[in-house]
Amino acid sequence: MTNGHELAAAILSGSIRALARGLTWVEAGGPRAEALVDALYGHARPAHIVGITGAPGAGKSTLVRALAVEARARGLTVGVLAIDPSSPFSGGAILGDRIRMNEVAGDAGVFIRSMATRGVLGGLSRAAADAVDVLCAAGRQLVMVETVGVGQDEVDIMRVAHTTVVVSVPGLGDDIQALKAGIIEIADIHAVNKADREGAQRTIAELSVMLAMGTRKRDAWEPPLVSCVASRDEGIAALLDEVTRHFEHLHATGEIHVRERRIAQARVIRLAQSLVAETLRPLDRDDDPLVQDVERVARHELSPYRCARALLTRASDRERASSHV
Amino acid sequence: MTNGHELAAAILSGSIRALARGLTWVEAGGPRAEALVDALYGHARPAHIVGITGAPGAGKSTLVRALAVEARARGLTVGVLAIDPSSPFSGGAILGDRIRMNEVAGDAGVFIRSMATRGVLGGLSRAAADAVDVLCAAGRQLVMVETVGVGQDEVDIMRVAHTTVVVSVPGLGDDIQALKAGIIEIADIHAVNKADREGAQRTIAELSVMLAMGTRKRDAWEPPLVSCVASRDEGIAALLDEVTRHFEHLHATGEIHVRERRIAQARVIRLAQSLVAETLRPLDRDDDPLVQDVERVARHELSPYRCARALLTRASDRERASSHV
Repeated sequence: MTNGHELAAAILSGSIRALARGLTWVEAGGPRAEALVDALYGHARPAHIVGITGAPGAGKSTLVRALAVEARARGLTVGVLAIDPSSPFSGGAILGDRIRMNEVAGDAGVFIRSMATRGVLGGLSRAAADAVDVLCAAGRQLVMVETVGVGQDEVDIMRVAHTTVVVSVPGLGDDIQALKAGIIEIADIHAVNKADREGAQRTIAELSVMLAMGTRKRDAWEPPLVSCVASRDEGIAALLDEVTRHFEHLHATGEIHVRERRIAQARVIRLAQSLVAETLRPLDRDDDPLVQDVERVARHELSPYRCARALLTRASDRERASSHV
Repeated sequence: MTNGHELAAAILSGSIRALARGLTWVEAGGPRAEALVDALYGHARPAHIVGITGAPGAGKSTLVRALAVEARARGLTVGVLAIDPSSPFSGGAILGDRIRMNEVAGDAGVFIRSMATRGVLGGLSRAAADAVDVLCAAGRQLVMVETVGVGQDEVDIMRVAHTTVVVSVPGLGDDIQALKAGIIEIADIHAVNKADREGAQRTIAELSVMLAMGTRKRDAWEPPLVSCVASRDEGIAALLDEVTRHFEHLHATGEIHVRERRIAQARVIRLAQSLVAETLRPLDRDDDPLVQDVERVARHELSPYRCARALLTRASDRERASSHV
């Protein structure tokens, strides 16, 4: 399969091998990723895209695996995209527990892909959104995206999801819980995992208070709180019930269209931004006027704002030129 | 002061009030921030820009305050920019310990500004870089930027710095330490704060191993490790010595020019990207062709890549039009 159209056709026909290759293409980024998404995009089947986020150590991978097993029992096909944070320099993946996910990998109805994060062309959220398209095109009915819930990147990745599950856990330090403050508010559903641990009642009580104080009333959905012990499959059916109920709510209220539009807008902006970055980064020729401009910025002879405007013009000219080829 | 040139002149003349107002302008972003930076940029005095990063709870604010006092004792004027992570939705600042910084605020030679992070137009790293320009233009000789060391945003913010100090601390959980893996490698200097605590020797030993294994040899600088107890001013003089020694090393080797160029390039790219985002975000008119394109992306009728290319063209056209006014 040498081009996007052929690979897209194979993915749409249900080939697992093509699905795996498609994910490799979008992870690598560049023209092949673009060609594949262009070819697939209009053919995506309706899927429920669920983001699972929470601090490291919250047991997200175990929870996702348990949800996958439960969804299979309900007759759904499942795709999982697990995203590892890693160094922008060395790229070592932090979490070592991906292997556990393979317990369900013998079932062709569950497809799990772990995505490294280092140096992904066009950014991690670009790659994650493209990968979700590929999983949807392959006919996966429930697509779960799992990320560590810290930082703006994570919030960006979660912007692909119809339903966001935020996983809390008893006994993590206040420091790391505080970091989650930004994530808490994007939750459509709260899961308290490891609910058999000491301190679970306190965590649940604190979350309940936070929810009661919450100003969030944007779509008449009250985020429920589900306790579970993913490692023993406790509370998983109830959690999947809530996930499904949220999707039904989105459709019943028409909110699904608002979310789809928000997802599309954020994605388009990020893609255009990555085109801008690609315009400058490959240039290292000193005789390039833009490189000279950057040099002048470095010497404080040119304002960075003026140089940025020149870069934008260049990115657009490059785009116009390539679209006339 | 109604325009960028007047405010720039007042900042350059040393007015503290103008400095405070300039920081407010760049924090708000938009045309005033741009006008101010355009007016200031060519007049910036040479400053040493030092990034201080590390996990929440590492005692960064206390460390920065102690460094500021030490730098003052050496006759340097100091500017501090403290950046709070906060929710993208509710915007509550997480850290409550900014107030302690005010102990040194009675000294006009130390100017401290805490920057909120919610909804900063054009992004937080844009605002931080502009604020550093303002502090440099105001003649601050040592400019410290303090951020929590988690996530890509933080790495972006650190890209303004000549010298990056990564603060570790004994006894934080492995989870949060692991998150720092990406930050560890951007360190020019490692500080182990709260070195009187239990577990300090272990933290120092682990960092030493990590440093010995490090592949970083890019500029013949071996990142030193300094133990300190910032709350008792222990090790602070030694830390500032290393900070100064690193700056001298950058100048002696010519590496300063490489860094300045890298800082300029990253900043220009991010600025151009924020211009792209601004092109789409204010549009909510349904009859706008670009808004209709986004709607078609949401309905899976148009590929997000194609829509992104249309957005880029629009951003550039908008730019061309505004530069002809």
